[in-house]
Amino acid sequence: MDKGLIIVISAPSGTGKSSICRHLLKVYPEIEFSVSYTSRQPRPGEVNGKDYHFISRDDFKQRIGQDEFVEWVENYGNFYGTSTGAIERVLNDGKDLLLDIEPRGAKAIKNRFPDAVFVFVLPPSLDELLRRLEKRGHESPAAIKNRFAQAESELKEVLWYDYLIFNEELEAAIGQMMAIYKAEKCKISRLRGKIDCFFKSC
Amino acid sequence: MDKGLIIVISAPSGTGKSSICRHLLKVYPEIEFSVSYTSRQPRPGEVNGKDYHFISRDDFKQRIGQDEFVEWVENYGNFYGTSTGAIERVLNDGKDLLLDIEPRGAKAIKNRFPDAVFVFVLPPSLDELLRRLEKRGHESPAAIKNRFAQAESELKEVLWYDYLIFNEELEAAIGQMMAIYKAEKCKISRLRGKIDCFFKSC
Repeated sequence: MDKGLIIVISAPSGTGKSSICRHLLKVYPEIEFSVSYTSRQPRPGEVNGKDYHFISRDDFKQRIGQDEFVEWVENYGNFYGTSTGAIERVLNDGKDLLLDIEPRGAKAIKNRFPDAVFVFVLPPSLDELLRRLEKRGHESPAAIKNRFAQAESELKEVLWYDYLIFNEELEAAIGQMMAIYKAEKCKISRLRGKIDCFFKSC
Repeated sequence: MDKGLIIVISAPSGTGKSSICRHLLKVYPEIEFSVSYTSRQPRPGEVNGKDYHFISRDDFKQRIGQDEFVEWVENYGNFYGTSTGAIERVLNDGKDLLLDIEPRGAKAIKNRFPDAVFVFVLPPSLDELLRRLEKRGHESPAAIKNRFAQAESELKEVLWYDYLIFNEELEAAIGQMMAIYKAEKCKISRLRGKIDCFFKSC
């Protein structure tokens, strides 16, 4: 059996990344979504094991000590991380895994899992990104400015990714994401097991 | 403007390659189909410039001398070849190009155009390939045996290709081919012009 595929998706806020992920998971139920660990408190409505694996600060630190995370970060006093073991379990089952993660974490995934596929989503233009951030309307101008600056600097990061989707129109962007997944499943390097089978008529 | 993309498709006879090509060209009119040169006589119904560029044997030999072909072969006394200049003209126009070519010629394309994408199409099994060849019904058992042996040896060639499509069901195989094309158009390495534009807001 061929090993599963890791797809990593990154994007600044306001580019439609969540919608793209949701559609991909709906169309391809064979893809699992990677749930991160965090030491922060669940917000109302958040479900343990679905939105995050909520664990204590001490538990998180202990797991860092045991090298359990392929990547982790501390943000505003809270830890966030991705479990290496959880990824490996999914792949060894021959299932595929989608990770929604920012470029720093994505880079760590690439170092540990070089066969993973990296997709960056961009708005059609920088102006459009600013418009979309403003339209969300629930953030202060200072927070928006901050997000925009962060997005701009993240974008300079995209060149080591494999694929880039310009989300001009959500439907088309979703189609591109599905095509990337489908095409990657046809990569010869991922089909060694199936090819062996073909020649041995198994 | 980003350069066009070359897609090379190879497959043994009886795997549905022609149908896959036809559909791809129909759905994506921005893809041109590469028409080979040949010194053989046109068969009834064949159109010059569409099925082949029909040229004389002397003309073909002269062009070989001028290094006009990225690959050429002599089969049963007839020459067949692909013009390097014709490929470059299409790519420089920013258009994409589909080539239907056997593995030897494909290898020559890869040496000259390393960014090209190589897709191999296989039947679901070797037994199924034999059944399909027999079903075509217009060849002698000896010719079929010969084709089968050729196919089997070609298949051992597939490992250097980028993608492999197992054509179990034509609709699905066409979907995979379209996904490969669509995904390759999202490769960051092919989008440098568009990315530059994004940052310069052009």
